[in-house]
Amino acid sequence: MNAPMIVLEGLDAAGKTTVQNAAEEVLRSQYRDLVVTREPGGTPVGERLRELLLTPDIVMGDLTETLLMLASRSDHFEQVIKPHLVAGDPVLCSRFMLSTLAYQCAGRGISFGMVQSMHRMILEGFQPDLTIIIDVPPAVSRERLERHGELDRIEHDADLEFSARVRDFMLGWSKHEAPLRSLVVDGTLDPESVRDQVIAAVQSTIQQFHAEDTRAGRPT
Amino acid sequence: MNAPMIVLEGLDAAGKTTVQNAAEEVLRSQYRDLVVTREPGGTPVGERLRELLLTPDIVMGDLTETLLMLASRSDHFEQVIKPHLVAGDPVLCSRFMLSTLAYQCAGRGISFGMVQSMHRMILEGFQPDLTIIIDVPPAVSRERLERHGELDRIEHDADLEFSARVRDFMLGWSKHEAPLRSLVVDGTLDPESVRDQVIAAVQSTIQQFHAEDTRAGRPT
Repeated sequence: MNAPMIVLEGLDAAGKTTVQNAAEEVLRSQYRDLVVTREPGGTPVGERLRELLLTPDIVMGDLTETLLMLASRSDHFEQVIKPHLVAGDPVLCSRFMLSTLAYQCAGRGISFGMVQSMHRMILEGFQPDLTIIIDVPPAVSRERLERHGELDRIEHDADLEFSARVRDFMLGWSKHEAPLRSLVVDGTLDPESVRDQVIAAVQSTIQQFHAEDTRAGRPT
Repeated sequence: MNAPMIVLEGLDAAGKTTVQNAAEEVLRSQYRDLVVTREPGGTPVGERLRELLLTPDIVMGDLTETLLMLASRSDHFEQVIKPHLVAGDPVLCSRFMLSTLAYQCAGRGISFGMVQSMHRMILEGFQPDLTIIIDVPPAVSRERLERHGELDRIEHDADLEFSARVRDFMLGWSKHEAPLRSLVVDGTLDPESVRDQVIAAVQSTIQQFHAEDTRAGRPT
């Protein structure tokens, strides 16, 4: 790939917008083009799947939900993410593989092995360069969501225990699986501190990406 | 399960309607309720996926297509097929697991191992009691389709070589994988002969299903 991919993760209403604005600012200052996208979604097929996945009164089982998340990822990676990264445009994506591992596997009990092996097939071994996890306690996420108004299907189903499993998985994943490719930001801090941490991490990811590129002998 | 599941397979326009009518007649004569359904589809989520999968101008990759077929199967099996079979209602379904193996794996090159392992997870080891494959040469399927008018997305993409791979896989599967659970009917024969073969096979499947049930000591 010829540009980095940066992913935003966290519980709903953790404060992704502040983080996204900060990451976007840094990326736009360094690249001519930037793709800002989301999952589920990001393609015509993906956006229709998003609607199906998040409409509150639609009934579906956990395995069906997981397969639709993976179908959306497959379409998104093939049609949007990979072609842009190859062309040298960075990608900033709200939710990606960590959400499926956290919500569907840790949260709902779907097999980690199955999702991991599907990810290897869909992403052909690719992994995002930086995953920023905005961390808030489940009660904070719930309280903010209720204040904002309408809940989507997955938010509606989520009780505090479910959200605690999702959160714990994300924190454990960062610590044990991706210590060098992730950043946990405390989403209860003031926006200015969150912003500063995100800007520093994105700048460092870009530098490291191009340093590796230079070492690999490719033009930066 | 407390009733048999019978599946209809074959190339498009092979003549599924004649076969379906014959199978339906036998099943209705022996059971109070019968579920006649199809894939992709058969549930609210599945029918929306069917529309996405078959609309001619929608662009998606082969892996995305496969994941959507599997998502539709997962929803259909969990919400419709399994509860009905458990309740003692037979299910007659147009297209099922063999279509995914034939079209997506043999036809498009998606991994057989992945689809088979997903089938084991989705169907929890269940297999249909009888799969009726209506066999016609690819050129006959194509000629009939063109006569009927509009082609769906998958039919539109299918050239004769693709259809030959699909057909050969279905015939080989019947011979080597499911000689006792499948019937190949020559779809170029006159409708009366097709009908007779289907009626005999469905009757024999019902008898065998209840014979096994009795041997297993369950009430028939």
